[in-house]
Amino acid sequence: METTRDVALGIDTATGVQAALFRSAPIFRNIENHALADLAAISKAMTAAEGTILSRQGEPASHLLVLLDGRIALETLSAVAATTVVEIVPPGGHSMLSAVLGDVPALMTARAIQPSRLIGVDAAGLRGLLYREPSIAAALLRAEAAAFGALVRQVCDLKLRTTAQRLGCYLLELTDETAANTVALRLPFDKRLLAARLGCRQENLSRAFAALRRLGVETHGARVILHDIAGLRSYALCDC
Amino acid sequence: METTRDVALGIDTATGVQAALFRSAPIFRNIENHALADLAAISKAMTAAEGTILSRQGEPASHLLVLLDGRIALETLSAVAATTVVEIVPPGGHSMLSAVLGDVPALMTARAIQPSRLIGVDAAGLRGLLYREPSIAAALLRAEAAAFGALVRQVCDLKLRTTAQRLGCYLLELTDETAANTVALRLPFDKRLLAARLGCRQENLSRAFAALRRLGVETHGARVILHDIAGLRSYALCDC
Repeated sequence: METTRDVALGIDTATGVQAALFRSAPIFRNIENHALADLAAISKAMTAAEGTILSRQGEPASHLLVLLDGRIALETLSAVAATTVVEIVPPGGHSMLSAVLGDVPALMTARAIQPSRLIGVDAAGLRGLLYREPSIAAALLRAEAAAFGALVRQVCDLKLRTTAQRLGCYLLELTDETAANTVALRLPFDKRLLAARLGCRQENLSRAFAALRRLGVETHGARVILHDIAGLRSYALCDC
Repeated sequence: METTRDVALGIDTATGVQAALFRSAPIFRNIENHALADLAAISKAMTAAEGTILSRQGEPASHLLVLLDGRIALETLSAVAATTVVEIVPPGGHSMLSAVLGDVPALMTARAIQPSRLIGVDAAGLRGLLYREPSIAAALLRAEAAAFGALVRQVCDLKLRTTAQRLGCYLLELTDETAANTVALRLPFDKRLLAARLGCRQENLSRAFAALRRLGVETHGARVILHDIAGLRSYALCDC
């Protein structure tokens, strides 16, 4: 296995992604075996140190990025502030799909906010496969609709919910528990990033955590304990 | 030309869309002539009275809707409020693309807020053409990336800008003028809908209009006059 290192980017890449690796990413789950082999042939395994820029807004989107481990922040440059955090991609998620399929410049900057392990699928190669392999096309177009739906939900969230409600929904998304009385979580990134993701200032995030205390949300740094999931859910009125 | 009328929906449909009609919609602009004929064969011309629901969130997205005249509100149901206005589609715009390509239920409800004239392209037929006709695939995937980008910009807008800045950006989007000292606009829909689109309460919209007065924004009902476009632009810090 050949390994190269791009020192400037802090990305290690190894060619020869094993088809089995693709199965761990939901976006590739329903793709047929022979098509997975085609995908593997145009993909590379990547590791990225914290802080690495994986793709830059406005530049060609050279790869679909599928995150196996770590976290990626999707940010945009704006005339109002240095950057806006649009979304934080969790393990199993992906980014750059829309720009890759549409063959347009990257819509957001992707930055590893934790040491990350990824699959990078060559953009031009993927567009080629789209026409030849219906199971790949169906999977990608469904993934794009899901990503679109997530943005729609975020727009609604920002238009309708208070910061405390948005925080409540975000905390509930971090757990699969819906019935337990008590669940302990770890915030997967720092509160500065969490505030940016929720679209509020850090002091408002602190106020939001304080407001959720009466709903059984206990915090100790990055550790969060939810004592009343049902109560939090009916307060935050999540749609997810 | 056969004409049918669905009384419950208030939609008039006429089969046999002329290929030339497609040219007036930016989404179809770069599609080759022979492919336009294929598109026309799976499309119908539609007119919808104000208030008509064209597609309902959660139900199958049966058609790509391309708006020739009128306006469509894209709304979502939510646990927080009856509806959220995610976007208002202007003439030349489209809706349902993401759900149609991904073959998933409609992500939003599309409602005509003015008497509207549309082209409805059959969803299953369009997915079939996607694989057979590269110029259609390229046009649709580029359009989807553009729609994704518009949602990303709206998320940033909601996270970073004040209501008055968001209103300023929205007013500036209604004109192509960038240099003129004075430009007169008509709000294309009522202030209740404008407040919903901007994600604020109506009283906050009134305050935002009042805040913009010192930047030369004069309003008389639906008539708006911008007396200082450059000043408004540097206040609102639009990214578009």
